[in-house]
Amino acid sequence: MAIFKEITSKDNAEIKRIVKLQSSARERRDTGLFVAEGLRVCDDCADNGIEIVTLVLSKNYYEKQGKSLNKYIEKAAETLLVSESVFSKIADTKTPQGILAVGKIPQATAKKINNGGRYVALENIADPSNLGAIARTAEAIGVDGIIVSADGCDPYSPKVIRASMGTVLRLDIIVSDNIVDDLKNSGLRLYGCVVKGGKDIRDVVFQNGSAVVIGNEANGLTEAVKKISQNITIPMQGFAESLNAAAAAAIAMWELKR
Amino acid sequence: MAIFKEITSKDNAEIKRIVKLQSSARERRDTGLFVAEGLRVCDDCADNGIEIVTLVLSKNYYEKQGKSLNKYIEKAAETLLVSESVFSKIADTKTPQGILAVGKIPQATAKKINNGGRYVALENIADPSNLGAIARTAEAIGVDGIIVSADGCDPYSPKVIRASMGTVLRLDIIVSDNIVDDLKNSGLRLYGCVVKGGKDIRDVVFQNGSAVVIGNEANGLTEAVKKISQNITIPMQGFAESLNAAAAAAIAMWELKR
Repeated sequence: MAIFKEITSKDNAEIKRIVKLQSSARERRDTGLFVAEGLRVCDDCADNGIEIVTLVLSKNYYEKQGKSLNKYIEKAAETLLVSESVFSKIADTKTPQGILAVGKIPQATAKKINNGGRYVALENIADPSNLGAIARTAEAIGVDGIIVSADGCDPYSPKVIRASMGTVLRLDIIVSDNIVDDLKNSGLRLYGCVVKGGKDIRDVVFQNGSAVVIGNEANGLTEAVKKISQNITIPMQGFAESLNAAAAAAIAMWELKR
Repeated sequence: MAIFKEITSKDNAEIKRIVKLQSSARERRDTGLFVAEGLRVCDDCADNGIEIVTLVLSKNYYEKQGKSLNKYIEKAAETLLVSESVFSKIADTKTPQGILAVGKIPQATAKKINNGGRYVALENIADPSNLGAIARTAEAIGVDGIIVSADGCDPYSPKVIRASMGTVLRLDIIVSDNIVDDLKNSGLRLYGCVVKGGKDIRDVVFQNGSAVVIGNEANGLTEAVKKISQNITIPMQGFAESLNAAAAAAIAMWELKR
Protein backbone atom coordinates (compact mmCIF):
# COMPACT_ATOMS: atom_id res chain seq x y z
CA MET A 1 0.00 0.00 0.00
CA ALA A 2 1.14 3.47 -0.76
CA ILE A 3 -1.32 6.34 -0.43
CA PHE A 4 -4.64 5.78 1.36
CA LYS A 5 -7.02 8.68 1.52
CA GLU A 6 -10.62 9.46 2.23
CA ILE A 7 -12.77 11.48 -0.16
CA THR A 8 -16.24 12.72 0.69
CA SER A 9 -16.88 15.27 -2.04
CA LYS A 10 -18.26 14.47 -5.48
CA ASP A 11 -16.43 17.55 -6.74
CA ASN A 12 -13.02 16.14 -5.90
CA ALA A 13 -10.77 16.30 -8.99
CA GLU A 14 -9.81 12.62 -8.84
CA ILE A 15 -13.45 11.58 -8.60
CA LYS A 16 -14.28 13.71 -11.63
CA ARG A 17 -11.42 12.15 -13.56
CA ILE A 18 -12.72 8.63 -12.85
CA VAL A 19 -16.25 9.60 -13.87
CA LYS A 20 -14.83 10.83 -17.16
CA LEU A 21 -12.87 7.59 -17.64
CA GLN A 22 -16.12 5.67 -17.28
CA SER A 23 -18.02 7.68 -19.84
CA SER A 24 -15.45 8.79 -22.39
CA ALA A 25 -13.56 6.53 -24.81
CA ARG A 26 -11.39 9.50 -25.73
CA GLU A 27 -10.40 10.06 -22.10
CA ARG A 28 -9.45 6.38 -21.85
CA ARG A 29 -7.38 6.59 -25.00
CA ASP A 30 -5.66 9.85 -24.05
CA THR A 31 -4.72 8.64 -20.58
CA GLY A 32 -4.22 4.93 -21.34
CA LEU A 33 -6.39 4.14 -18.34
CA PHE A 34 -9.70 2.31 -17.87
CA VAL A 35 -12.03 1.42 -15.01
CA ALA A 36 -12.51 -2.14 -13.77
CA GLU A 37 -15.71 -2.30 -11.74
CA GLY A 38 -16.65 -5.00 -9.28
CA LEU A 39 -14.60 -7.61 -7.43
CA ARG A 40 -14.59 -10.14 -10.23
CA VAL A 41 -13.21 -7.71 -12.80
CA CYS A 42 -10.64 -6.43 -10.26
CA ASP A 43 -9.55 -10.05 -9.84
CA ASP A 44 -9.26 -10.40 -13.61
CA CYS A 45 -6.97 -7.35 -13.61
CA ALA A 46 -4.81 -8.80 -10.86
CA ASP A 47 -4.65 -12.23 -12.49
CA ASN A 48 -3.57 -10.72 -15.78
CA GLY A 49 -0.87 -8.42 -14.48
CA ILE A 50 -2.77 -5.24 -15.21
CA GLU A 51 -1.25 -2.34 -13.31
CA ILE A 52 -3.67 -0.79 -10.82
CA VAL A 53 -3.20 2.95 -10.55
CA THR A 54 -6.05 3.73 -8.19
CA LEU A 55 -8.29 1.47 -6.14
CA VAL A 56 -11.62 2.94 -5.02
CA LEU A 57 -13.61 1.41 -2.17
CA SER A 58 -16.88 2.51 -0.64
CA LYS A 59 -16.79 2.83 3.12
CA ASN A 60 -19.45 0.18 3.67
CA TYR A 61 -17.66 -2.26 1.43
CA TYR A 62 -14.34 -1.59 3.13
CA GLU A 63 -15.82 -2.12 6.58
CA LYS A 64 -17.65 -5.28 5.52
CA GLN A 65 -14.80 -6.96 3.62
CA GLY A 66 -11.98 -5.99 5.99
CA LYS A 67 -8.65 -7.72 5.54
CA SER A 68 -9.67 -9.63 2.42
CA LEU A 69 -9.16 -6.36 0.55
CA ASN A 70 -5.52 -6.01 1.60
CA LYS A 71 -4.21 -7.82 -1.46
CA TYR A 72 -5.89 -5.26 -3.71
CA ILE A 73 -4.80 -2.33 -1.56
CA GLU A 74 -1.21 -3.55 -1.58
CA LYS A 75 -1.13 -3.76 -5.36
CA ALA A 76 -2.62 -0.32 -5.94
CA ALA A 77 -0.43 2.76 -6.11
CA GLU A 78 -3.17 4.63 -4.28
CA THR A 79 -6.44 3.75 -2.57
CA LEU A 80 -9.41 6.06 -2.19
CA LEU A 81 -12.03 5.43 0.47
CA VAL A 82 -15.27 7.16 -0.52
CA SER A 83 -18.82 7.57 0.76
CA GLU A 84 -21.62 5.51 -0.78
CA SER A 85 -22.96 8.53 -2.63
CA VAL A 86 -19.57 9.32 -4.16
CA PHE A 87 -19.20 5.68 -5.16
CA SER A 88 -22.61 5.72 -6.84
CA LYS A 89 -21.48 8.70 -8.86
CA ILE A 90 -18.41 6.98 -10.28
CA ALA A 91 -19.96 3.54 -10.71
CA ASP A 92 -21.38 2.55 -14.10
CA THR A 93 -23.72 -0.08 -12.67
CA LYS A 94 -26.97 0.64 -10.86
CA THR A 95 -26.23 -1.37 -7.74
CA PRO A 96 -22.46 -1.20 -7.40
CA GLN A 97 -20.58 -3.59 -5.12
CA GLY A 98 -18.32 -0.88 -3.71
CA ILE A 99 -15.01 -1.73 -5.37
CA LEU A 100 -13.43 -0.52 -8.58
CA ALA A 101 -9.95 -0.08 -9.92
CA VAL A 102 -8.41 2.34 -12.37
CA GLY A 103 -6.00 0.25 -14.42
CA LYS A 104 -3.53 0.75 -17.22
CA ILE A 105 -4.83 -0.45 -20.59
CA PRO A 106 -2.57 -3.26 -21.85
CA GLN A 107 -0.93 -1.60 -24.85
CA ALA A 108 -0.94 -3.73 -27.96
CA THR A 109 -0.09 -2.32 -31.37
CA ALA A 110 -0.16 -3.80 -34.85
CA LYS A 111 3.48 -4.82 -34.31
CA LYS A 112 2.21 -7.44 -31.90
CA ILE A 113 0.30 -9.34 -34.56
CA ASN A 114 1.87 -12.77 -34.99
CA ASN A 115 1.81 -13.61 -38.68
CA GLY A 116 1.49 -17.29 -37.82
CA GLY A 117 -1.56 -16.75 -35.59
CA ARG A 118 -5.31 -16.99 -36.15
CA TYR A 119 -7.18 -13.77 -35.49
CA VAL A 120 -10.60 -12.23 -35.67
CA ALA A 121 -10.63 -8.63 -36.91
CA LEU A 122 -13.57 -6.34 -36.28
CA GLU A 123 -14.10 -3.33 -38.50
CA ASN A 124 -16.14 -0.71 -36.71
CA ILE A 125 -18.29 -2.94 -34.50
CA ALA A 126 -20.65 -0.46 -32.85
CA ASP A 127 -22.55 -2.42 -30.22
CA PRO A 128 -20.77 -3.06 -26.90
CA SER A 129 -22.76 -6.25 -26.26
CA ASN A 130 -21.64 -7.63 -29.62
CA LEU A 131 -17.99 -6.81 -28.94
CA GLY A 132 -18.26 -8.32 -25.45
CA ALA A 133 -19.93 -11.48 -26.76
CA ILE A 134 -17.33 -11.83 -29.54
CA ALA A 135 -14.48 -11.51 -27.03
CA ARG A 136 -16.03 -14.18 -24.84
CA THR A 137 -16.46 -16.54 -27.79
CA ALA A 138 -12.95 -15.71 -29.08
CA GLU A 139 -11.42 -16.81 -25.80
CA ALA A 140 -13.46 -20.02 -25.64
CA ILE A 141 -12.63 -20.95 -29.23
CA GLY A 142 -9.00 -20.05 -28.68
CA VAL A 143 -8.19 -17.47 -31.36
CA ASP A 144 -4.85 -15.73 -30.85
CA GLY A 145 -6.24 -12.23 -30.55
CA ILE A 146 -8.74 -9.63 -31.66
CA ILE A 147 -7.86 -6.77 -33.96
CA VAL A 148 -10.38 -3.93 -33.59
CA SER A 149 -10.58 -0.69 -35.53
CA ALA A 150 -10.32 2.38 -33.31
CA ASP A 151 -13.51 3.81 -34.84
CA GLY A 152 -15.58 0.94 -33.40
CA CYS A 153 -16.64 0.72 -29.79
CA ASP A 154 -13.91 0.78 -27.20
CA PRO A 155 -12.99 -2.67 -25.83
CA TYR A 156 -12.22 -1.05 -22.46
CA SER A 157 -15.61 0.59 -22.01
CA PRO A 158 -17.49 -0.55 -18.90
CA LYS A 159 -20.24 -2.16 -20.99
CA VAL A 160 -17.83 -4.19 -23.09
CA ILE A 161 -15.85 -5.35 -20.06
CA ARG A 162 -19.09 -6.54 -18.43
CA ALA A 163 -20.51 -8.19 -21.56
CA SER A 164 -17.18 -9.94 -22.14
CA MET A 165 -17.15 -11.29 -18.56
CA GLY A 166 -13.68 -9.78 -18.24
CA THR A 167 -12.25 -11.68 -21.21
CA VAL A 168 -11.09 -8.42 -22.87
CA LEU A 169 -8.58 -8.18 -20.02
CA ARG A 170 -7.13 -11.60 -20.82
CA LEU A 171 -7.11 -11.61 -24.61
CA ASP A 172 -4.57 -9.98 -26.90
CA ILE A 173 -6.49 -7.01 -28.21
CA ILE A 174 -4.92 -4.84 -30.86
CA VAL A 175 -6.64 -1.50 -31.34
CA SER A 176 -5.84 -0.19 -34.79
CA ASP A 177 -6.09 3.43 -35.94
CA ASN A 178 -5.86 2.28 -39.54
CA ILE A 179 -7.18 -1.24 -39.75
CA VAL A 180 -6.89 -1.46 -43.56
CA ASP A 181 -3.15 -0.73 -43.55
CA ASP A 182 -2.52 -2.76 -40.42
CA LEU A 183 -4.30 -5.79 -41.86
CA LYS A 184 -2.57 -5.37 -45.22
CA ASN A 185 0.85 -5.20 -43.55
CA SER A 186 0.14 -7.95 -41.01
CA GLY A 187 1.26 -10.80 -43.23
CA LEU A 188 -2.00 -12.59 -42.41
CA ARG A 189 -4.26 -14.15 -45.03
CA LEU A 190 -7.43 -12.08 -44.78
CA TYR A 191 -10.95 -13.49 -45.09
CA GLY A 192 -13.65 -10.82 -45.16
CA CYS A 193 -17.14 -12.00 -44.20
CA VAL A 194 -19.78 -10.72 -46.60
CA VAL A 195 -23.49 -11.51 -46.51
CA LYS A 196 -23.67 -12.64 -50.14
CA GLY A 197 -21.45 -13.67 -53.02
CA GLY A 198 -18.28 -14.71 -51.19
CA LYS A 199 -16.73 -18.17 -51.25
CA ASP A 200 -18.70 -20.60 -49.08
CA ILE A 201 -16.90 -20.59 -45.71
CA ARG A 202 -17.21 -24.41 -45.57
CA ASP A 203 -14.96 -24.63 -48.63
CA VAL A 204 -12.17 -22.54 -47.14
CA VAL A 205 -9.21 -24.40 -45.65
CA PHE A 206 -7.94 -22.06 -42.96
CA GLN A 207 -4.26 -22.24 -42.12
CA ASN A 208 -2.04 -20.62 -39.53
CA GLY A 209 -1.50 -16.96 -40.31
CA SER A 210 -5.13 -16.08 -41.03
CA ALA A 211 -7.74 -13.58 -39.92
CA VAL A 212 -11.49 -13.54 -40.42
CA VAL A 213 -12.79 -9.99 -40.71
CA ILE A 214 -16.28 -8.99 -39.54
CA GLY A 215 -17.83 -5.65 -40.49
CA ASN A 216 -20.10 -3.12 -38.90
CA GLU A 217 -23.58 -4.32 -37.81
CA ALA A 218 -25.49 -2.07 -40.21
CA ASN A 219 -23.09 -1.57 -43.10
CA GLY A 220 -20.87 -4.64 -43.21
CA LEU A 221 -17.27 -4.41 -44.38
CA THR A 222 -15.95 -1.31 -46.14
CA GLU A 223 -14.91 -1.61 -49.78
CA ALA A 224 -11.31 -1.06 -48.67
CA VAL A 225 -11.35 -4.19 -46.52
CA LYS A 226 -13.23 -6.18 -49.15
CA LYS A 227 -10.49 -5.31 -51.65
CA ILE A 228 -7.62 -6.61 -49.54
CA SER A 229 -9.32 -9.82 -48.45
CA GLN A 230 -10.80 -12.96 -49.91
CA ASN A 231 -14.52 -12.51 -49.47
CA ILE A 232 -16.25 -15.42 -47.76
CA THR A 233 -19.90 -16.06 -46.94
CA ILE A 234 -21.73 -18.04 -44.29
CA PRO A 235 -24.59 -19.51 -46.33
CA MET A 236 -28.02 -18.48 -45.05
CA GLN A 237 -31.60 -19.50 -45.55
CA GLY A 238 -34.99 -18.09 -44.75
CA PHE A 239 -35.96 -14.46 -44.64
CA ALA A 240 -33.07 -13.44 -42.39
CA GLU A 241 -31.39 -10.30 -43.67
CA SER A 242 -28.16 -11.34 -42.06
CA LEU A 243 -26.78 -13.11 -39.06
CA ASN A 244 -26.23 -10.92 -36.01
CA ALA A 245 -22.56 -9.81 -35.89
CA ALA A 246 -21.87 -11.87 -32.77
CA ALA A 247 -23.37 -15.03 -34.32
CA ALA A 248 -21.51 -14.48 -37.60
CA ALA A 249 -18.26 -13.97 -35.69
CA ALA A 250 -18.90 -17.12 -33.62
CA ILE A 251 -19.36 -19.26 -36.73
CA ALA A 252 -16.45 -17.61 -38.58
CA MET A 253 -14.07 -18.10 -35.64
CA TRP A 254 -15.29 -21.65 -35.21
CA GLU A 255 -14.48 -22.42 -38.86
CA LEU A 256 -11.14 -20.57 -38.57
CA LYS A 257 -10.12 -22.90 -35.75
CA ARG A 258 -12.05 -26.02 -36.81
CA MET B 1 -62.55 -3.04 -40.61
CA ALA B 2 -65.02 -4.07 -38.01
CA ILE B 3 -65.14 -2.12 -34.76
CA PHE B 4 -63.31 1.22 -34.50
CA LYS B 5 -63.41 2.98 -31.16
CA GLU B 6 -61.67 5.69 -29.26
CA ILE B 7 -60.32 5.18 -25.75
CA THR B 8 -59.01 7.98 -23.57
CA SER B 9 -58.88 6.35 -20.16
CA LYS B 10 -55.98 4.29 -18.85
CA ASP B 11 -58.48 2.48 -16.65
CA ASN B 12 -60.38 1.06 -19.60
CA ALA B 13 -60.68 -2.71 -19.23
CA GLU B 14 -59.27 -3.47 -22.68
CA ILE B 15 -56.25 -1.26 -22.04
CA LYS B 16 -55.60 -3.04 -18.76
CA ARG B 17 -55.84 -6.39 -20.50
CA ILE B 18 -53.21 -5.37 -23.07
CA VAL B 19 -50.89 -4.06 -20.35
CA LYS B 20 -51.17 -7.45 -18.69
CA LEU B 21 -50.45 -9.26 -21.96
CA GLN B 22 -47.23 -7.25 -22.26
CA SER B 23 -45.97 -8.04 -18.80
CA SER B 24 -47.29 -11.51 -18.01
CA ALA B 25 -46.23 -14.75 -19.69
CA ARG B 26 -49.06 -16.50 -17.86
CA GLU B 27 -51.63 -14.08 -19.27
CA ARG B 28 -50.27 -14.75 -22.76
CA ARG B 29 -50.46 -18.48 -22.24
CA ASP B 30 -53.94 -18.42 -20.70
CA THR B 31 -55.40 -16.26 -23.47
CA GLY B 32 -53.28 -17.49 -26.40
CA LEU B 33 -52.60 -13.85 -27.28
CA PHE B 34 -49.45 -11.72 -27.52
CA VAL B 35 -48.58 -8.13 -28.36
CA ALA B 36 -46.73 -7.15 -31.53
CA GLU B 37 -45.32 -3.66 -31.09
CA GLY B 38 -44.16 -1.35 -33.86
CA LEU B 39 -44.87 -1.26 -37.58
CA ARG B 40 -42.19 -3.77 -38.52
CA VAL B 41 -43.44 -6.44 -36.14
CA CYS B 42 -47.04 -5.76 -37.20
CA ASP B 43 -45.88 -6.35 -40.78
CA ASP B 44 -44.25 -9.61 -39.68
CA CYS B 45 -47.59 -10.67 -38.22
CA ALA B 46 -49.46 -9.81 -41.41
CA ASP B 47 -46.87 -11.53 -43.61
CA ASN B 48 -47.06 -14.70 -41.56
CA GLY B 49 -50.81 -15.01 -41.38
CA ILE B 50 -51.03 -14.23 -37.68
CA GLU B 51 -54.58 -13.32 -36.74
CA ILE B 52 -54.88 -9.76 -35.43
CA VAL B 53 -57.48 -9.50 -32.71
CA THR B 54 -57.00 -5.87 -31.78
CA LEU B 55 -55.03 -3.10 -33.45
CA VAL B 56 -54.08 -0.14 -31.26
CA LEU B 57 -53.06 3.21 -32.77
CA SER B 58 -52.08 6.41 -31.06
CA LYS B 59 -53.97 9.45 -32.32
CA ASN B 60 -50.82 11.20 -33.52
CA TYR B 61 -49.68 8.14 -35.40
CA TYR B 62 -53.10 7.64 -36.97
CA GLU B 63 -53.25 11.26 -38.11
CA LYS B 64 -49.73 11.22 -39.48
CA GLN B 65 -49.90 7.86 -41.31
CA GLY B 66 -53.41 8.24 -42.69
CA LYS B 67 -54.54 5.80 -45.37
CA SER B 68 -51.38 3.69 -45.23
CA LEU B 69 -52.81 2.16 -42.07
CA ASN B 70 -55.98 0.93 -43.77
CA LYS B 71 -54.51 -2.47 -44.60
CA TYR B 72 -53.85 -3.10 -40.89
CA ILE B 73 -57.22 -1.73 -39.84
CA GLU B 74 -59.00 -3.94 -42.38
CA LYS B 75 -57.27 -7.06 -41.08
CA ALA B 76 -57.98 -6.38 -37.42
CA ALA B 77 -61.21 -7.54 -35.82
CA GLU B 78 -61.21 -4.29 -33.83
CA THR B 79 -59.17 -1.08 -33.81
CA LEU B 80 -58.63 1.14 -30.79
CA LEU B 81 -57.60 4.75 -31.22
CA VAL B 82 -55.95 5.99 -28.03
CA SER B 83 -54.28 9.11 -26.66
CA GLU B 84 -50.48 9.31 -26.51
CA SER B 85 -50.49 8.83 -22.75
CA VAL B 86 -52.64 5.70 -22.98
CA PHE B 87 -50.35 4.37 -25.71
CA SER B 88 -47.29 4.98 -23.52
CA LYS B 89 -48.94 2.95 -20.81
CA ILE B 90 -49.46 -0.12 -22.96
CA ALA B 91 -46.20 0.13 -24.94
CA ASP B 92 -43.19 -1.88 -23.77
CA THR B 93 -40.66 0.43 -25.46
CA LYS B 94 -39.64 3.83 -24.17
CA THR B 95 -40.33 5.77 -27.35
CA PRO B 96 -43.17 3.84 -28.99
CA GLN B 97 -44.06 4.39 -32.64
CA GLY B 98 -47.79 4.48 -31.98
CA ILE B 99 -48.88 1.14 -33.44
CA LEU B 100 -49.28 -2.27 -31.87
CA ALA B 101 -51.35 -5.34 -32.50
CA VAL B 102 -52.74 -8.01 -30.22
CA GLY B 103 -52.33 -11.24 -32.16
CA LYS B 104 -53.09 -14.92 -31.72
CA ILE B 105 -50.04 -16.99 -30.79
CA PRO B 106 -49.44 -19.56 -33.54
CA GLN B 107 -50.24 -22.81 -31.74
CA ALA B 108 -47.65 -25.51 -32.21
CA THR B 109 -47.55 -28.63 -30.09
CA ALA B 110 -45.14 -31.53 -29.89
CA LYS B 111 -47.31 -33.28 -32.49
CA LYS B 112 -45.96 -30.83 -35.01
CA ILE B 113 -42.36 -32.03 -34.68
CA ASN B 114 -41.29 -33.60 -37.97
CA ASN B 115 -39.15 -36.62 -37.16
CA GLY B 116 -37.17 -36.05 -40.36
CA GLY B 117 -36.33 -32.44 -39.48
CA ARG B 118 -33.37 -30.73 -37.83
CA TYR B 119 -34.24 -28.82 -34.67
CA VAL B 120 -32.69 -26.86 -31.88
CA ALA B 121 -34.22 -27.54 -28.46
CA LEU B 122 -33.80 -25.12 -25.57
CA GLU B 123 -34.22 -26.36 -22.02
CA ASN B 124 -35.11 -23.49 -19.72
CA ILE B 125 -33.28 -20.65 -21.48
CA ALA B 126 -33.80 -17.73 -19.11
CA ASP B 127 -32.47 -14.65 -20.91
CA PRO B 128 -34.79 -13.08 -23.52
CA SER B 129 -31.84 -11.67 -25.50
CA ASN B 130 -30.36 -15.16 -25.77
CA LEU B 131 -33.65 -16.64 -26.95
CA GLY B 132 -34.10 -13.80 -29.45
CA ALA B 133 -30.54 -14.17 -30.76
CA ILE B 134 -30.93 -17.95 -31.06
CA ALA B 135 -34.17 -17.55 -33.03
CA ARG B 136 -32.50 -15.10 -35.40
CA THR B 137 -29.56 -17.45 -35.95
CA ALA B 138 -31.89 -20.46 -36.29
CA GLU B 139 -33.74 -18.79 -39.13
CA ALA B 140 -30.53 -17.75 -40.91
CA ILE B 141 -29.02 -21.22 -40.61
CA GLY B 142 -32.29 -22.80 -41.66
CA VAL B 143 -33.19 -25.22 -38.87
CA ASP B 144 -36.72 -26.60 -39.10
CA GLY B 145 -37.91 -25.26 -35.78
CA ILE B 146 -37.22 -24.46 -32.16
CA ILE B 147 -38.49 -26.61 -29.31
CA VAL B 148 -38.57 -24.60 -26.06
CA SER B 149 -39.46 -25.76 -22.58
CA ALA B 150 -42.37 -23.86 -21.09
CA ASP B 151 -40.33 -23.11 -17.94
CA GLY B 152 -37.89 -21.00 -19.96
CA CYS B 153 -38.58 -17.48 -21.10
CA ASP B 154 -41.63 -16.97 -23.26
CA PRO B 155 -40.84 -16.68 -26.99
CA TYR B 156 -43.77 -14.28 -27.35
CA SER B 157 -42.58 -11.79 -24.72
CA PRO B 158 -41.98 -8.27 -26.06
CA LYS B 159 -38.23 -8.51 -25.37
CA VAL B 160 -37.81 -11.79 -27.21
CA ILE B 161 -39.83 -10.58 -30.21
CA ARG B 162 -37.61 -7.48 -30.42
CA ALA B 163 -34.32 -9.34 -29.90
CA SER B 164 -35.34 -11.89 -32.52
CA MET B 165 -36.13 -9.12 -35.04
CA GLY B 166 -39.54 -10.75 -35.47
CA THR B 167 -38.13 -14.16 -36.44
CA VAL B 168 -40.11 -15.89 -33.64
CA LEU B 169 -43.21 -15.01 -35.65
CA ARG B 170 -41.89 -16.80 -38.73
CA LEU B 171 -40.25 -19.89 -37.25
CA ASP B 172 -41.95 -23.07 -36.14
CA ILE B 173 -41.79 -22.77 -32.38
CA ILE B 174 -42.98 -25.65 -30.25
CA VAL B 175 -43.53 -24.73 -26.62
CA SER B 176 -43.34 -27.88 -24.53
CA ASP B 177 -44.76 -28.35 -21.04
CA ASN B 178 -42.70 -31.49 -20.63
CA ILE B 179 -39.66 -31.20 -22.83
CA VAL B 180 -38.08 -34.47 -21.62
CA ASP B 181 -41.10 -36.55 -22.65
CA ASP B 182 -41.70 -34.58 -25.82
CA LEU B 183 -38.09 -34.97 -26.93
CA LYS B 184 -38.09 -38.65 -26.00
CA ASN B 185 -41.25 -39.26 -28.01
CA SER B 186 -40.28 -37.04 -30.93
CA GLY B 187 -38.43 -39.73 -32.84
CA LEU B 188 -35.50 -37.33 -33.21
CA ARG B 189 -31.89 -38.28 -32.47
CA LEU B 190 -31.01 -36.06 -29.51
CA TYR B 191 -27.64 -34.40 -29.01
CA GLY B 192 -27.30 -32.65 -25.65
CA CYS B 193 -24.62 -29.95 -25.48
CA VAL B 194 -22.51 -30.26 -22.34
CA VAL B 195 -19.51 -28.10 -21.43
CA LYS B 196 -17.17 -31.02 -20.84
CA GLY B 197 -16.87 -34.72 -21.50
CA GLY B 198 -19.24 -35.18 -24.42
CA LYS B 199 -18.29 -36.43 -27.86
CA ASP B 200 -16.45 -33.73 -29.86
CA ILE B 201 -19.14 -32.06 -31.96
CA ARG B 202 -16.77 -32.10 -34.97
CA ASP B 203 -16.88 -35.90 -34.91
CA VAL B 204 -20.68 -36.13 -35.01
CA VAL B 205 -22.28 -36.80 -38.39
CA PHE B 206 -25.67 -35.16 -38.09
CA GLN B 207 -28.47 -36.64 -40.16
CA ASN B 208 -32.06 -35.67 -40.85
CA GLY B 209 -34.21 -36.32 -37.81
CA SER B 210 -31.91 -34.71 -35.23
CA ALA B 211 -32.05 -32.07 -32.51
CA VAL B 212 -29.25 -30.30 -30.66
CA VAL B 213 -30.30 -29.47 -27.11
CA ILE B 214 -28.97 -26.41 -25.25
CA GLY B 215 -29.43 -25.99 -21.50
CA ASN B 216 -30.01 -23.16 -19.08
CA GLU B 217 -27.39 -20.39 -18.99
CA ALA B 218 -26.35 -21.02 -15.40
CA ASN B 219 -27.05 -24.71 -14.90
CA GLY B 220 -26.74 -26.35 -18.30
CA LEU B 221 -28.86 -29.38 -19.19
CA THR B 222 -30.80 -31.30 -16.57
CA GLU B 223 -29.78 -34.87 -15.80
CA ALA B 224 -33.06 -36.01 -17.35
CA VAL B 225 -32.14 -34.51 -20.73
CA LYS B 226 -28.55 -35.74 -20.49
CA LYS B 227 -29.87 -39.27 -19.98
CA ILE B 228 -32.00 -39.34 -23.10
CA SER B 229 -29.45 -37.74 -25.42
CA GLN B 230 -25.97 -38.34 -26.74
CA ASN B 231 -23.84 -35.79 -24.93
CA ILE B 232 -21.71 -33.65 -27.22
CA THR B 233 -19.18 -30.91 -26.48
CA ILE B 234 -17.91 -27.88 -28.35
CA PRO B 235 -14.20 -28.01 -27.51
CA MET B 236 -12.99 -24.89 -25.69
CA GLN B 237 -9.72 -23.30 -24.75
CA GLY B 238 -8.56 -20.55 -22.46
CA PHE B 239 -10.07 -19.60 -19.16
CA ALA B 240 -13.61 -19.36 -20.47
CA GLU B 241 -16.03 -21.11 -18.16
CA SER B 242 -18.35 -21.76 -21.02
CA LEU B 243 -19.57 -20.28 -24.24
CA ASN B 244 -22.52 -17.95 -23.92
CA ALA B 245 -25.74 -19.90 -24.66
CA ALA B 246 -26.38 -17.94 -27.87
CA ALA B 247 -22.85 -18.59 -29.16
CA ALA B 248 -23.01 -22.28 -28.22
CA ALA B 249 -26.38 -22.57 -29.96
CA ALA B 250 -25.02 -20.80 -33.06
CA ILE B 251 -22.11 -23.24 -33.37
CA ALA B 252 -24.26 -26.28 -32.55
CA MET B 253 -26.91 -25.32 -35.14
CA TRP B 254 -24.19 -24.58 -37.67
CA GLU B 255 -22.74 -28.08 -37.19
CA LEU B 256 -26.22 -29.60 -37.24
CA LYS B 257 -26.80 -28.12 -40.70
CA ARG B 258 -23.21 -28.14 -41.98
